[in-house]
Amino acid sequence: MIVGVLGPAGSYSDKAAKGWMKKQGIEGKASLLYYDDITDTFSAVIVGRTDMGIVPIENSIEGSVGITLDLLLESDVTIIGEIVVPIKHCLLSKGKISDIRIILSHPQALAQCRQFIRTHFKDVEIRTTGSTSHAAKLANEFEEMAAIASEESAKAYGLNILMPNIQDREQNHTRFIAIRKNDTEMDESNTNDAYVRKTSVIAYIGNDRAGSLYEILGEFAKRDINLTRIESRPSKRSLGDYLFYIDLEGSTSDAVIKDALYHIDSKVSMLKVLGSYNGYLLDN
Amino acid sequence: MIVGVLGPAGSYSDKAAKGWMKKQGIEGKASLLYYDDITDTFSAVIVGRTDMGIVPIENSIEGSVGITLDLLLESDVTIIGEIVVPIKHCLLSKGKISDIRIILSHPQALAQCRQFIRTHFKDVEIRTTGSTSHAAKLANEFEEMAAIASEESAKAYGLNILMPNIQDREQNHTRFIAIRKNDTEMDESNTNDAYVRKTSVIAYIGNDRAGSLYEILGEFAKRDINLTRIESRPSKRSLGDYLFYIDLEGSTSDAVIKDALYHIDSKVSMLKVLGSYNGYLLDN
Repeated sequence: MIVGVLGPAGSYSDKAAKGWMKKQGIEGKASLLYYDDITDTFSAVIVGRTDMGIVPIENSIEGSVGITLDLLLESDVTIIGEIVVPIKHCLLSKGKISDIRIILSHPQALAQCRQFIRTHFKDVEIRTTGSTSHAAKLANEFEEMAAIASEESAKAYGLNILMPNIQDREQNHTRFIAIRKNDTEMDESNTNDAYVRKTSVIAYIGNDRAGSLYEILGEFAKRDINLTRIESRPSKRSLGDYLFYIDLEGSTSDAVIKDALYHIDSKVSMLKVLGSYNGYLLDN
Repeated sequence: MIVGVLGPAGSYSDKAAKGWMKKQGIEGKASLLYYDDITDTFSAVIVGRTDMGIVPIENSIEGSVGITLDLLLESDVTIIGEIVVPIKHCLLSKGKISDIRIILSHPQALAQCRQFIRTHFKDVEIRTTGSTSHAAKLANEFEEMAAIASEESAKAYGLNILMPNIQDREQNHTRFIAIRKNDTEMDESNTNDAYVRKTSVIAYIGNDRAGSLYEILGEFAKRDINLTRIESRPSKRSLGDYLFYIDLEGSTSDAVIKDALYHIDSKVSMLKVLGSYNGYLLDN
């Protein structure tokens, strides 16, 4: 089995993919292929170059990953799993703390470590990179540079962890999803370790009269179906025209969920069921 | 009046700020101060270093700007205006098209121009930067480099616009908000040109029983109040515990809105009204 993942090695996506393979007990049987961006990771799944793909969908600090939401709408893929990865930034370098003249990282990671940088590296130059892994790659070349990136990046790029767990907020995690092509078969995932079973849908109401979202939510509420997430997203047809991404607890194989979706389908312009799947938490 | 804005000069935030000042008729009376990140722009407003700040809140492709949503929750600021800016990427360089060996930009901008790059620059090296403006800054130093950035960046960094409007999707815009400190006074904005009058609130329900969001939306639905946006966002207390960011049409000075918010306030753990304000669209 080939698993496509947003690279490079050492990225948080890489960590999510490895964690998911371990939870599924397929570590020995699967190999990873790294892609430059989320679109390529989706494309590889669709054309069959990979059997599945793992991509980020939401970070607890930064919010949703727009391109992933858009591609879920446009592509014939099914969500088969969720992996929640705690984000723990480290300060990485080839040199010593006293050598550091420049700190590199992705703007989001730098923002998540602002207090840390102010306290310990007030006069150090800050430079932004396109990803935390690219920062680690650069820090490997120059001793006076340090990268803010994952523990895994230290291993991937031969850097020392000068200071671990440096982000300002303890609670920082990213949700990843595992996807496969619609018409492929895949073994039911190992459910021993799952913290939740979820279903994800996209609804497009198609007219913006007050209360239409309210009616949809009513179908869930009157059946005591718990929603774990709801997000509106521009339909890109016109300003203020929205799609709704809804995650709920339960599976489409449950009669009550099936019934709710059946009634919602008759009220909206479009209802896309993205899949029912298990969610896993990685510990570190 | 001093307006704080996410810099550097030539950024889309800069464009939003200038557009807003023009709509308000305060171009001659206000000066801009550029900040490195969104947190600094908020801080400057709170400590009174600037009279107001302009920051991005949502892009139609990439989704919400998480840090802005978080700071709206935590800070004593009021939203006093919205500016929607169309995002139009250009290919900028000091050299000619035939000189280009490297294309630089922020990963999101590169992703938004993928088809363009594949069609016209198949064998060119791609490098990521922390922002589109930083790409323009670098392109100013080397003739073989081109940046993907705004028309305004061309002016700010002395580059030629080799190809305008190169993004793959025509519909790409970013919503910015204007904020001021809670206890300051500000003239009512010029409303001639506004496309909408909105109110933004944050609700924290505090328990995750099915239907609680449904009840809140019911208060709006039964009063025919149109919601323009709803988004759940992790409360960061525990996984699956969410805040709801809701935008609605109308003002807290309308009796019907006041009444709906009064009833919602009694049903939730926390209701924060972020402000009632006019929304403006920039044409280009």
